[in-house]
Amino acid sequence: MRFAAKVAYDGTAYHGFQRQRSAPTIQLRLEEALAALSGRPVSVIGAGRTDAGVHATGQVISFDLDWTHGPDRLRSALNANLPQDIAVRDVWQARDDFHPRFDAVSRSYEYRLYVAEVRDPLLDRTAWRLGRALDLGAVAKAAGGLIGTHDFIAFGTPPRGENSVRTVVEAEWTAQDDGRQRFYITADAFLYKMVRTITATLAQVGLGQMTAEDFRGILAARQRGLAAPPAPACGLTLVAVTYSEHV
Amino acid sequence: MRFAAKVAYDGTAYHGFQRQRSAPTIQLRLEEALAALSGRPVSVIGAGRTDAGVHATGQVISFDLDWTHGPDRLRSALNANLPQDIAVRDVWQARDDFHPRFDAVSRSYEYRLYVAEVRDPLLDRTAWRLGRALDLGAVAKAAGGLIGTHDFIAFGTPPRGENSVRTVVEAEWTAQDDGRQRFYITADAFLYKMVRTITATLAQVGLGQMTAEDFRGILAARQRGLAAPPAPACGLTLVAVTYSEHV
Repeated sequence: MRFAAKVAYDGTAYHGFQRQRSAPTIQLRLEEALAALSGRPVSVIGAGRTDAGVHATGQVISFDLDWTHGPDRLRSALNANLPQDIAVRDVWQARDDFHPRFDAVSRSYEYRLYVAEVRDPLLDRTAWRLGRALDLGAVAKAAGGLIGTHDFIAFGTPPRGENSVRTVVEAEWTAQDDGRQRFYITADAFLYKMVRTITATLAQVGLGQMTAEDFRGILAARQRGLAAPPAPACGLTLVAVTYSEHV
Repeated sequence: MRFAAKVAYDGTAYHGFQRQRSAPTIQLRLEEALAALSGRPVSVIGAGRTDAGVHATGQVISFDLDWTHGPDRLRSALNANLPQDIAVRDVWQARDDFHPRFDAVSRSYEYRLYVAEVRDPLLDRTAWRLGRALDLGAVAKAAGGLIGTHDFIAFGTPPRGENSVRTVVEAEWTAQDDGRQRFYITADAFLYKMVRTITATLAQVGLGQMTAEDFRGILAARQRGLAAPPAPACGLTLVAVTYSEHV
């Protein structure tokens, strides 16, 4: 039987989602938990290959398992076998041909930031500190230019064999009174480092280091090396993956 | 010269604030940073002896130091010498006889909780998970009974040589739409484990395991062993210490 699951994790201690030869990853821990249940190796496929240090609240995975006790007991059994920084939020039986990456229609990421003169140890694990306040009007103007179908090569690298055209359907930067901010972006798919590079470049706009027109010009130039270096991994969370039908 | 400072920390990795023979504490790290600046041992006094795993955003400390470059450069120098999970938010020159604990007029703590069927790895470091929603009306009714001057022996232990009478001036439980909740409490001072014991007992009221009247009865009985065991340290943060005048 093929199962799908929604997974949350604090990525701080991991070398990203994808299994690696000799480093702890989310995929490895999930496969270990499944192997402990089934007594034999189980392969996990994830919707998004989150980088080292990146978090998730809505990663989607699939795996094949003989399990006759229902999805709820599978969820409990998995959570009992996973470390505290990884949790299975939901499990359901999927179509036999369900593939969490190929079948995904869109992905949403959230990047958290906060404005403070001095670091805040209770936020640093999941947010990037900026030393001074942003011009949110300029950020909104720049972010608006992301919406639609564009070649995003200026902001990231496509997986081998793919082009760099993506469709962004949502790109919103919001600020709370206490200095905390979130950049929320949804696209059909993302290039490597795309969300972190866009976030860092939008931060430069907000800090007055470039204008909203400069930002739009970087996108239009379709040239690498003009955007800011990617923002730190700690601020990024994969929050949702959507599918066209119930899988 | 005597200095005072406001300090924030993620207490997860520490055996509490107070220096111990052979375990890392916040006080030890602060004294090490000061010794690195001054070239000789410096003693730090804190307003609150937070327990192992408890956090702070507004701990207040004092220390004596020969420093002629002003408080702002002292703050920067200290932060450069502290680990990432401890930060000095503010430094100022204090009266020569300022004592952060004896001079404090009140302390405020926040205890964070969240309601979710499954653990959330991005919240677990600083919040306590409850498996189901609370009756917030019952919690508010019980918490109201804390306000005023009472013998709180049912909810904690006084430091040696002190009585257990304290004055609570604020005790408010608030809930957000997303299931996150906070219990905020201010008193002249607290007994050991008092905030965590009150929080856990209020949670029992919210979960219907006791009534608001039972809660008030426990306080009135002035008897240990009737309250719930203390809630986990990870949810607790010392947020403010107040003084009657600028120190």
